[in-house]
Amino acid sequence: MENRDEIFERLNSLLLEKKYADFMHEIDELNDIDAAEYLATLPDELMLSAFRMLKKDAAAGIFSFMDIEMQESLVNRMSDSEITMIIEDLFVDDAVDILEELPAIMVKRILKLSRPETRNIINKFLSYPEDSAGSVMTAEFLDLHKSMTVSEAIENIRRKGVDKETVYVAYVTNASRVLEGIVSLKDLIFASPDAIIADIMDTDILCANTLDHQEDVVAMIRKYDMLALPIVDKENRLVGIVTVDDAIDVIEEEATEDIEKMAAIVPSDKSYMRAGVFEIWKTRIPWLLLLMLSATFTGQIIASFESKLAAIPVLIAFIPMLMGTGGNSGGQSSVTVIRGLAVGEIENRDVWKVIWKETRVALLCGAVLSVCNFIKIILVDNLLFGNGVSLEANLVVSLTLIATVIVAKIVGCALPVAAKKLGLDPAVMASPFITTVVDAVSLLIYFAIASIILL
Amino acid sequence: MENRDEIFERLNSLLLEKKYADFMHEIDELNDIDAAEYLATLPDELMLSAFRMLKKDAAAGIFSFMDIEMQESLVNRMSDSEITMIIEDLFVDDAVDILEELPAIMVKRILKLSRPETRNIINKFLSYPEDSAGSVMTAEFLDLHKSMTVSEAIENIRRKGVDKETVYVAYVTNASRVLEGIVSLKDLIFASPDAIIADIMDTDILCANTLDHQEDVVAMIRKYDMLALPIVDKENRLVGIVTVDDAIDVIEEEATEDIEKMAAIVPSDKSYMRAGVFEIWKTRIPWLLLLMLSATFTGQIIASFESKLAAIPVLIAFIPMLMGTGGNSGGQSSVTVIRGLAVGEIENRDVWKVIWKETRVALLCGAVLSVCNFIKIILVDNLLFGNGVSLEANLVVSLTLIATVIVAKIVGCALPVAAKKLGLDPAVMASPFITTVVDAVSLLIYFAIASIILL
Repeated sequence: MENRDEIFERLNSLLLEKKYADFMHEIDELNDIDAAEYLATLPDELMLSAFRMLKKDAAAGIFSFMDIEMQESLVNRMSDSEITMIIEDLFVDDAVDILEELPAIMVKRILKLSRPETRNIINKFLSYPEDSAGSVMTAEFLDLHKSMTVSEAIENIRRKGVDKETVYVAYVTNASRVLEGIVSLKDLIFASPDAIIADIMDTDILCANTLDHQEDVVAMIRKYDMLALPIVDKENRLVGIVTVDDAIDVIEEEATEDIEKMAAIVPSDKSYMRAGVFEIWKTRIPWLLLLMLSATFTGQIIASFESKLAAIPVLIAFIPMLMGTGGNSGGQSSVTVIRGLAVGEIENRDVWKVIWKETRVALLCGAVLSVCNFIKIILVDNLLFGNGVSLEANLVVSLTLIATVIVAKIVGCALPVAAKKLGLDPAVMASPFITTVVDAVSLLIYFAIASIILL
Repeated sequence: MENRDEIFERLNSLLLEKKYADFMHEIDELNDIDAAEYLATLPDELMLSAFRMLKKDAAAGIFSFMDIEMQESLVNRMSDSEITMIIEDLFVDDAVDILEELPAIMVKRILKLSRPETRNIINKFLSYPEDSAGSVMTAEFLDLHKSMTVSEAIENIRRKGVDKETVYVAYVTNASRVLEGIVSLKDLIFASPDAIIADIMDTDILCANTLDHQEDVVAMIRKYDMLALPIVDKENRLVGIVTVDDAIDVIEEEATEDIEKMAAIVPSDKSYMRAGVFEIWKTRIPWLLLLMLSATFTGQIIASFESKLAAIPVLIAFIPMLMGTGGNSGGQSSVTVIRGLAVGEIENRDVWKVIWKETRVALLCGAVLSVCNFIKIILVDNLLFGNGVSLEANLVVSLTLIATVIVAKIVGCALPVAAKKLGLDPAVMASPFITTVVDAVSLLIYFAIASIILL
């Protein structure tokens, strides 16, 4: 098992010494992903020459694993016939992914160069809504007829399987392309060669519709440990499949999106390293602005209490701690519930169970924090720093703490569930939003308790 | 495609009417996951009776998809011979997963009832460190000899493949079990029946070591679109494989863990709905306590400025907004970098590129926020609420805002990278931690600017 860096170096020296035959042989030994990574290390002109040395049947696959910048640079430098060859060899889902990223003028050129059938199917795939099953599926699946024998089916796979995204699952369709059954290559291998497909195919079909959300598609693939999920149109006609490797990419993408939303970032398709400063700014500023403006409420609560705060200034010092602890407590609950909803562990009907659980957790957390804070104020604030916090003030802070944690945790778990019920995205109800709500609530509690005990 | 609920209802009535033969036939038609879900709807005693009606070769598979509570209840009620049968039929990885969750006394009973070979391999698998490749792999892979012909290999798969986790990839090992090559079922189907395995096997082997982290394993499976990754021991002997469906579970688990860490929760293996209140409390309280205590610094900064704040009380009202915006800005940057590091998009060498990018984004964000805030104070705070914020105070707040956003974003992106360099987990450096740091810094900036302009 040779180190990939060593292979890359050997490829470099073969290129340098113009030993092109050896180079072609060596790069052919690499898998497509590593070959694409190697080409990425070359300067543009050399990359084009190296790309032209690739075997015809490998070029499209390697092309599909390249960065969009490399693809763009290649398309710019390739001849019309080269482009035609690549686009015809690409899997439809890869072609569509690439076309969605390229500048409009290039897309036009590429579509003009492709065969009418290819152009039609690409245009159809491009028209599926973003994040739909249709937008992540590919059209290259194996189809069989139910009257075939097993050995005919295997022969069929041998003939047509080379260009398919997977040969391990084949789909049985009728004359109007309606999906009737599924046969795995395992079934075929284990069956007698003379058996009829209709007798061995699985008719308990799991499939999704082109317009279903991609999250539902990957949830099925994950739940049922599938290698591919068939996608049908409104008339139950098979139009594509989503394979497990594409499902993994969707899972990563959806997790990143949820994490971004939880951090008050507007999700973007463009990866961080490729996005420009202005593009990143556009994903960050909306929430920052909204949350900053909504802090006006918190400010107004403090402003209305200003004269009293001036009388007991020691209370001011604890505002950040109270708001911080409230925000963190609420954030913990909201993030737990958001993730639970996303992976399907928590369902709508669990709402009261969750609120009841969070209330008890909040009581436990609040009690411990409150006691620790009470002791800390005596030991650290008073004895160590000599801040002279009175017992009454200490009591106000500690009581506020327990009340804030309880409110924060209940708000934190209730808002995402409520958002989901209203058809909104629960992930938006994460820490930053909760924090703003909890900030205001905790100040109101603080000043209310202070008014009772101190004033 | 019949609705699953309808099937479940029909199964219920067959059970009720004691039509056991029909029931056995119907439940056999279901896939293992749905069958496990159906059994979960039955009361304990009925579930055991229904479980006993399952076909022998399906029982273990269905058992592996049950909740741990159901598995526990079944093991408690099953006879010794039934337990032996199940444990021998389970895939090793599933058996190990179940044993890790069951109470110690049950584990002892199960291990005593299993065959010595099974017991040995289970004990070996149980000894791999948590989150290692060894802890997620399974032992049921297909191995072939390189001297076999293709038709012999297919015959071999037909004979031994039933009990294997996948039949689509087979591994070629020598007499000392060292991995020499990989053959996919696709390769076998496409090759001539007389071809020798040694000639068609892929010797450019991608594999991982038993002690590698599971994150590295799933990263390889994702990058190279693999159906299974072979796992070798220190002597390069093949000991197991990680299949793509298990990789998906690991990806979900790792994403959840990262999200929990980002929300100041100590990750736990137990799912939220199954964990008790006390168990959840244990995952929440450590960070809440630590962050609360560290807010002492923020409090101390305010306390030391108390007399001046009492003189210009209008400054107090903006503390929550400044700290909130700082925390949100820093959180955005830290979460982006943490996720980028986790999915491998950002690497250690990118650190300066990232800091430079974040600085420019921060300047843009800070400038916009600052201007908006300046105008908002004039329009809302002064004209609408009549708070009487002086132009100088407005300037102090707006200047602090821009400085805070810049510091927050730089700290936010630098800390996760620094954590990774030190071998710590970057995810811990997310919003709550950043917020505490940024809170203190923003107050220092606030009071410094106030001292210059106002006092």
